[in-house]
Amino acid sequence: MLRVLITTVPFGQNNKAPLEKLVSADLDYVINPLGRRLKEAELAEMIDGFDILIAGTEHISAKVLERATKLKLIARVGIGLDNLDLLEARRRGIQVTYTPDAPAPAVAELTIGLMFSLLRSIHLSNDDLHNERWTRYFGRRISNCNVGIVGAGRIGGKVISHLQAFGVNRVLAYDRDSNVQSNFNTNVEWVSKETVYQDSDIISIHVPLDHRTRNMIGSKELLSMRSNALLINASRGGIVNESDLAYVLNTGHLGGAAIDAFESEPYKGELANISRCLLTAHMGSMSLDCREKMEDEATDEAVRFSLDEKLKCLVPIEEYEVQELGFKNE
Amino acid sequence: MLRVLITTVPFGQNNKAPLEKLVSADLDYVINPLGRRLKEAELAEMIDGFDILIAGTEHISAKVLERATKLKLIARVGIGLDNLDLLEARRRGIQVTYTPDAPAPAVAELTIGLMFSLLRSIHLSNDDLHNERWTRYFGRRISNCNVGIVGAGRIGGKVISHLQAFGVNRVLAYDRDSNVQSNFNTNVEWVSKETVYQDSDIISIHVPLDHRTRNMIGSKELLSMRSNALLINASRGGIVNESDLAYVLNTGHLGGAAIDAFESEPYKGELANISRCLLTAHMGSMSLDCREKMEDEATDEAVRFSLDEKLKCLVPIEEYEVQELGFKNE
Repeated sequence: MLRVLITTVPFGQNNKAPLEKLVSADLDYVINPLGRRLKEAELAEMIDGFDILIAGTEHISAKVLERATKLKLIARVGIGLDNLDLLEARRRGIQVTYTPDAPAPAVAELTIGLMFSLLRSIHLSNDDLHNERWTRYFGRRISNCNVGIVGAGRIGGKVISHLQAFGVNRVLAYDRDSNVQSNFNTNVEWVSKETVYQDSDIISIHVPLDHRTRNMIGSKELLSMRSNALLINASRGGIVNESDLAYVLNTGHLGGAAIDAFESEPYKGELANISRCLLTAHMGSMSLDCREKMEDEATDEAVRFSLDEKLKCLVPIEEYEVQELGFKNE
Repeated sequence: MLRVLITTVPFGQNNKAPLEKLVSADLDYVINPLGRRLKEAELAEMIDGFDILIAGTEHISAKVLERATKLKLIARVGIGLDNLDLLEARRRGIQVTYTPDAPAPAVAELTIGLMFSLLRSIHLSNDDLHNERWTRYFGRRISNCNVGIVGAGRIGGKVISHLQAFGVNRVLAYDRDSNVQSNFNTNVEWVSKETVYQDSDIISIHVPLDHRTRNMIGSKELLSMRSNALLINASRGGIVNESDLAYVLNTGHLGGAAIDAFESEPYKGELANISRCLLTAHMGSMSLDCREKMEDEATDEAVRFSLDEKLKCLVPIEEYEVQELGFKNE
């Protein structure tokens, strides 16, 4: 009987179907008992003896994989691979699948929600009213804003199409892969990253974390933005440098920021002291439907593996090539 | 020289043009020195000697108008007339104008923002992270929701068109004027108010406050909603009964609520103790562009009056007829 370790939590909470599938396929599973993202050492201690890992965003490093003597499949629930040492997995003959499409609609909708909260100071006013304060904040309407998108892939692309339905002033976009431009209508202006930063009222980041995007936005980039610009990062922690952002916000620059993903989670850092920094607990993909789809797709890969069937969504070669150019394995 | 009292605040704060227009037209103005909505007695004390009132949502009752011996024009900045005794104004020969179109885009966008905050628990997570707590809330995507709109006029209509761009599951709508139905495409389902309450995942209210809508939503209506329904009121205080809402939320019924307008403002009431009740400080129309447009349009009416020109947006007869059927003048 193959043994499955499920590290991503919650799992099978609202819909038991994935767990039932594992049982039906005669797979023996254990769910992460700590109920939060595992630390590298915790995972290393836990992983031995498991054949399949249904994984979240915990750090699956060479050190962890060294202890995973029986592991043959990592089925990632989600899209980001920044915390998974793909090259080491390949060296050890471990296959890796992921669920790249499922989270996109949920992340795009959260992004739109964060955008309107920032534009209209919903979070600030809510905090005021729950603490016996009353201030009527002026806001901006999205149709008067230039919105800048860095990364126009699955998620950024959906954000752009939602924005266009609202009729924003200008959509400025940058993607390192210029081929994606053909997916969009002519109302998207393709510009450099620097122009996105400088000319946008709202800047939203939708790129994976890798050696090219780590600390992509630091003090220099933040200070190049408009003094009342709004910055949103619902992609990955580590792309917007957290201490630089706190520093710049504390100087009074930027109208506000919304951060959903952090270098270290649960997040406890200085951004929590800045009221105009809207913070959410890595909930981009946490809509019931998308989460269920992700869990379901990852579970199906585990079942396929156990039946010796062809896996459906193996991580493509390009992701390995990116890591050949640099992977954090501190 | 005609004298103008401006009670709505802030006024001319971000754009001085309306104040400059008054000066150019040789109109002498005074801005409400208290910086908040005036109480009836305060306004009564202040109003004598003024020819024109540029008004907000303060209570302009018969008692107030009795003291307004010189008043000839009330130029309302905004759309709601619930706090203005139109019949008494007419008896005293005071004309009343308003700005019915200007606020709609801003209110509709705030409504969408409140909707996404509720759907994804953005407000709860933000409060958590600013207080060293970390919970990943599950949310719902709007495309899986039935959204119910009560009142499909200028604002509700815009909310419906924004929602349709997101592709919601069903749009259920009710308007007491069945003629408005012809403004919409066939994807809107026209149903009774009761059906909106019962069959919607999100219910948003966009009606004026009058004798027909006062306390329109009390315990009975709230309890008829789905157990995880989300209720939004960015129209007027008094339509959703505040203590009934607090009571029902405290029983655990409803997924959450978002309230932007209150019976008495600044609001200090029991909803402030309920974290899943998102509260904002009557900011529906508070986008820079809409607010400027409202101030500008009301100022233009004052200037027209001073030049003996025809007023552009007199309150229509229907609004007087509504008040003939019942007006709060407590």
